[in-house]
Amino acid sequence: MTPSPLAPLTTDALFGRIEAIFRRAGMNEVQAGAMARVLTAGERDHCKSHGIYRIEGTLRTVKAGKVNPQAVPVLSPDDGSALVRVDARGGFANAAFELGLPELAARARRLGMAAMVINDCTHLAALWPEVEAVTAHGLAAMVMCPSYATVAPTGGTDPLLGTNPFAFGWPRRDSDPYVFDFATSVAARGEVELHRRAGKPLPEGWALDADGNPTTDPEAALAGAMLPFGGHKGSAISTMIELLAGIMIGDLTSPEVLDYLGTTTLAPRHGELILAFSPGAFAKGRPGDPFARAEALFEAIIGQGARLPSQRRFKARAASVAEGITLSAEETAQLDRFLVSGLDAI
Amino acid sequence: MTPSPLAPLTTDALFGRIEAIFRRAGMNEVQAGAMARVLTAGERDHCKSHGIYRIEGTLRTVKAGKVNPQAVPVLSPDDGSALVRVDARGGFANAAFELGLPELAARARRLGMAAMVINDCTHLAALWPEVEAVTAHGLAAMVMCPSYATVAPTGGTDPLLGTNPFAFGWPRRDSDPYVFDFATSVAARGEVELHRRAGKPLPEGWALDADGNPTTDPEAALAGAMLPFGGHKGSAISTMIELLAGIMIGDLTSPEVLDYLGTTTLAPRHGELILAFSPGAFAKGRPGDPFARAEALFEAIIGQGARLPSQRRFKARAASVAEGITLSAEETAQLDRFLVSGLDAI
Repeated sequence: MTPSPLAPLTTDALFGRIEAIFRRAGMNEVQAGAMARVLTAGERDHCKSHGIYRIEGTLRTVKAGKVNPQAVPVLSPDDGSALVRVDARGGFANAAFELGLPELAARARRLGMAAMVINDCTHLAALWPEVEAVTAHGLAAMVMCPSYATVAPTGGTDPLLGTNPFAFGWPRRDSDPYVFDFATSVAARGEVELHRRAGKPLPEGWALDADGNPTTDPEAALAGAMLPFGGHKGSAISTMIELLAGIMIGDLTSPEVLDYLGTTTLAPRHGELILAFSPGAFAKGRPGDPFARAEALFEAIIGQGARLPSQRRFKARAASVAEGITLSAEETAQLDRFLVSGLDAI
Repeated sequence: MTPSPLAPLTTDALFGRIEAIFRRAGMNEVQAGAMARVLTAGERDHCKSHGIYRIEGTLRTVKAGKVNPQAVPVLSPDDGSALVRVDARGGFANAAFELGLPELAARARRLGMAAMVINDCTHLAALWPEVEAVTAHGLAAMVMCPSYATVAPTGGTDPLLGTNPFAFGWPRRDSDPYVFDFATSVAARGEVELHRRAGKPLPEGWALDADGNPTTDPEAALAGAMLPFGGHKGSAISTMIELLAGIMIGDLTSPEVLDYLGTTTLAPRHGELILAFSPGAFAKGRPGDPFARAEALFEAIIGQGARLPSQRRFKARAASVAEGITLSAEETAQLDRFLVSGLDAI
């Protein structure tokens, strides 16, 4: 069947459609709104892996009872510290993040830096929407969270670490922020799965089989362990994420998440750590304007033919804003099915 | 000439000898003491690249007038923020770090997290001594600083980023802390130099020549650019370090350091960023003891045959403490020469 050409949607229209699906599935206003915002942003930026594709996983996790679709996150009162605590109450991280962001920004401005700790949340969105939201306040951001135990530490053989994303952002005055957001595994688990479906061998260095031997067989890799990016250095950073964004904040580590869910097909339940830094406060009294100096660094990177991370994403965003977002007939039909049948469509 | 067997030195004795060399070279008590402490620690831990080998570079930088050997660092008064500022006054970073550490620890305990900013310092020591000093206060630490422009961003061709070290530590109650400290380049510049001296080709993926083409020729690599570890991910982390620990703190970036020094043979002048986190404050009110939970994670890493970073170093330290530190006859002769001739030995 050839999909018929479909009219492009505005981002607002796509947001409305996703939000309605989540409301139909029993999510309350804050949960549905926050999740619809990040998945719309993913689709708008042509991050297909973090766009409407994730609606199904969201609904599956709701249906499995592993996330509270009615959760109303709670912000702890200001205790004078640099820590902003949000209890997600078993809901999605994004609703908790939206609640805590104004306080994180205020605290970082007052103290120079601050941390938002989100506990008891389910996280399945990309981290860059949160990074960008912090940079919109003129602050730099560092964000990390555990995942499921699917990655072996370098030198080891068994899945222990998660794909543990690490993200960072720097605010820019007249353009999109400098943002990176990547898995600390050499590849995302979804990429291994795509190789399996295509019957293609994996590149060397991606994975181990169940006996701990290097493998390029996707099937064997999925039964074994993925490897960290950058050898022992990436392994160390991934371990740091387990320590800071799992253990330190009193929330689950990647092996504990896998124990809790018993599967990697549901969205992971854990905590999240968001650090915010005020360049204005840090640079105070020092020569030079930090934002102007950063532009010189970015120009030196671009000027030699290298790319800033996220440049492709920002270009896709501009195109989506100008021309709208076009979904395929299959995608449109799936959204319609979700809207009509709710959790029964899963 | 066969070196005659030499009696091992205690760490205190080695410290005394290095400190005397630095005092003889015109360094004041705080500068000589702090630098002798970190270089003794390097030698003790069998980090030969960051032990007495660095005395010569220290003296060369003093002689070139690129560091102030008489600097007395100044701690800014507590402004109620999470930022502890130390002006190194053109001296070595380590003296400034020692001055600011008690205040960093107090501030992190009070606010949950805090940052020490060191400005106008010269840095040539490893970062792990500082990381360990923070963990000794029961705090987690993240430390970073720029370097010289010797590394091309991924996708680029020209040296722009430094080897920008990234270090982290987690305190452990009954054993040495979890510590990593690595260059964000695929290899340290010294390793390229060692290949050159040995007439050995570099592994693939380490470097580009002056025209921006991949090379395994060490000579061509030294005239060209090194590459970041882990491809675009390491490149992004290295850029983050330029932004946070250079630009944000109002100090030099790696290209600016190279402009200032005009050479990579002197110790780099810039700033340094040290973040301290209180696991006790972050985990407050949450289930589980973060230190006990971290031990379970470390056991799961070691239990599958992987190593924790720094384990080799801690083993060497134990051996040095038990058996003393044995220098070669050449090393001993060099120390004697430095002590007798001061900066004239350079």
